[in-house]
Amino acid sequence: MTYICTSILALLFLALVHGIAGAVEDPLPTWNDGAAKKSMLLFVEKVTTEGSTDFVLPAERIAVFDNDGTFWAEQPIHFQVQFALDRVKALAPNHPEWKTRQPFKSLLEGDKQAFAMGGEKAILEVMAVKHTGMTTEEFDGIVKDWLAKTTHPRFKRPYNEIVYQPMLELLAYLRANGFKTFIVSGGGVEFMRAWVEKLYGIPPEQVVGSMGKQKFELRDGKPVIVKLPAVDFVDDKEGKPIGIQKFIGRRPIVAFGNSDGDHQMLQWTAAGGGSRFMGLVHHTDAEREWAYDRTSHIGKLDKALDEANAKGWTVVDMKEDWKRVFPF
Amino acid sequence: MTYICTSILALLFLALVHGIAGAVEDPLPTWNDGAAKKSMLLFVEKVTTEGSTDFVLPAERIAVFDNDGTFWAEQPIHFQVQFALDRVKALAPNHPEWKTRQPFKSLLEGDKQAFAMGGEKAILEVMAVKHTGMTTEEFDGIVKDWLAKTTHPRFKRPYNEIVYQPMLELLAYLRANGFKTFIVSGGGVEFMRAWVEKLYGIPPEQVVGSMGKQKFELRDGKPVIVKLPAVDFVDDKEGKPIGIQKFIGRRPIVAFGNSDGDHQMLQWTAAGGGSRFMGLVHHTDAEREWAYDRTSHIGKLDKALDEANAKGWTVVDMKEDWKRVFPF
Repeated sequence: MTYICTSILALLFLALVHGIAGAVEDPLPTWNDGAAKKSMLLFVEKVTTEGSTDFVLPAERIAVFDNDGTFWAEQPIHFQVQFALDRVKALAPNHPEWKTRQPFKSLLEGDKQAFAMGGEKAILEVMAVKHTGMTTEEFDGIVKDWLAKTTHPRFKRPYNEIVYQPMLELLAYLRANGFKTFIVSGGGVEFMRAWVEKLYGIPPEQVVGSMGKQKFELRDGKPVIVKLPAVDFVDDKEGKPIGIQKFIGRRPIVAFGNSDGDHQMLQWTAAGGGSRFMGLVHHTDAEREWAYDRTSHIGKLDKALDEANAKGWTVVDMKEDWKRVFPF
Repeated sequence: MTYICTSILALLFLALVHGIAGAVEDPLPTWNDGAAKKSMLLFVEKVTTEGSTDFVLPAERIAVFDNDGTFWAEQPIHFQVQFALDRVKALAPNHPEWKTRQPFKSLLEGDKQAFAMGGEKAILEVMAVKHTGMTTEEFDGIVKDWLAKTTHPRFKRPYNEIVYQPMLELLAYLRANGFKTFIVSGGGVEFMRAWVEKLYGIPPEQVVGSMGKQKFELRDGKPVIVKLPAVDFVDDKEGKPIGIQKFIGRRPIVAFGNSDGDHQMLQWTAAGGGSRFMGLVHHTDAEREWAYDRTSHIGKLDKALDEANAKGWTVVDMKEDWKRVFPF
């Protein structure tokens, strides 16, 4: 009896010590101790402290994140553009008409910049046309296969390793504090859902993105959902708050982006009542990643940066704020 | 020391006893012990037993439910039609043109059946036109206000009390077993989100429904989302599996409906791999609720009932399977 008691008390003691140790452990170890990190820690403490005037119920702790340039890199071209390019090349032999038809022509001629300037819409058009008649399950398999076989031109690693370690830590930290984390990206929703759960721990139902039209049909008696050659929704700029309203139906209290494409999402988040956190990743690190902002064709950050500075939103200086950029 | 030990052991003992007592408590007390109840209990046990060949990871335990006729009643007319009617009447003095224009004409003349036959689309058209220019927040307030002030013609109680107690128990039972519960309804998503969280414990981000187009704009510098006079998506029949793919992006393992409008959602759910549960509420109780199926204008249940019978899906006989219908 005494032995059992001592064991139980020892276990309780260990649990207590472990709890205390856990509490003082740094939840954001690859963030330098600057203003950005401090603002995040302070915000989370405020909204999770019961009795505080800033307290937010767990159900309302909605955090939305852009993906390209916020969670993973977007240079030298958006990774989904590379996917589209690779798909067009693979299918081109069966489509001689693409040689003279835009945006396929730019892609086949290797003019990635010209294509990239077409924005999310051009990507979606290519994705929609290319994959017309394909079922959602077939498309999912193609994306996974491409990710497994393709590497990034600069880092020579699979694209799903070119992710920002500090942002992964922020995701885990928010979730540990009762936040529900969503992606709200201009990227194709079916493209992202093929890998986000494994990479970010974000389930498919918490991904908002651009999408093509689809139809339901029975193929040999088996129900399938088939991709159609038409754009249904573009989740970029003004589309982001709309996407949040359509898919989430509740205003976030945290929004993180990196470009003017995220500006309206940040404005929408900022305009709610109570405590809110608006963040921008500023790409300032040409050595470890890339440095670009106001004049970039990809991930242009200009007006949102002005508003962030004017309103005191958190701007993460990648070079100064991050000890490490990628997990590798 | 001995006192502390005894106390700890007593607490552990109590926790154990409580656990056992909890396990034998009936999670579905208002369901009679028939085939329907047995099929649900068996299914949940199978997919939640680790090591079983039918085991499903918690993240994949997606359960989708229709709303009208499945969670709450839909007679004598869909509750949202009553809402639309009340709104049209309230606004009619400012819209003399509605007297000659359908579907407003039917509504103003009190011809609810003619209007109801226009289906979800007619409702959406009325909702969209009526609320054009209104912000999503204003609309939310109008729905809540209507619910608070209006009562059901037969039961003389607020519409949000005309819900099925056995289905509320099923929802709680599934959630206690790690399921994520969604509504996938032909009803307007903004209409439902105004009250589903309080009533069903389903958060707004887990509601898939029909929707009108919206736009984002700055009004006096304040960002708002404004309703536009156009239908964006009809979440009924073939639209339901599409809605599931768009909003959830993962195939459910449980689907529950009550009409042919849910047929494709059940087919889509049934066509996945592993264990799945397809259920239909069959309205067979004219005394406590209503009895209707193959020839009803509202909630017609014909082809889905045939397939359910042929494939062994669970058909809930409201009269036989439910001890009680409503919470009151």
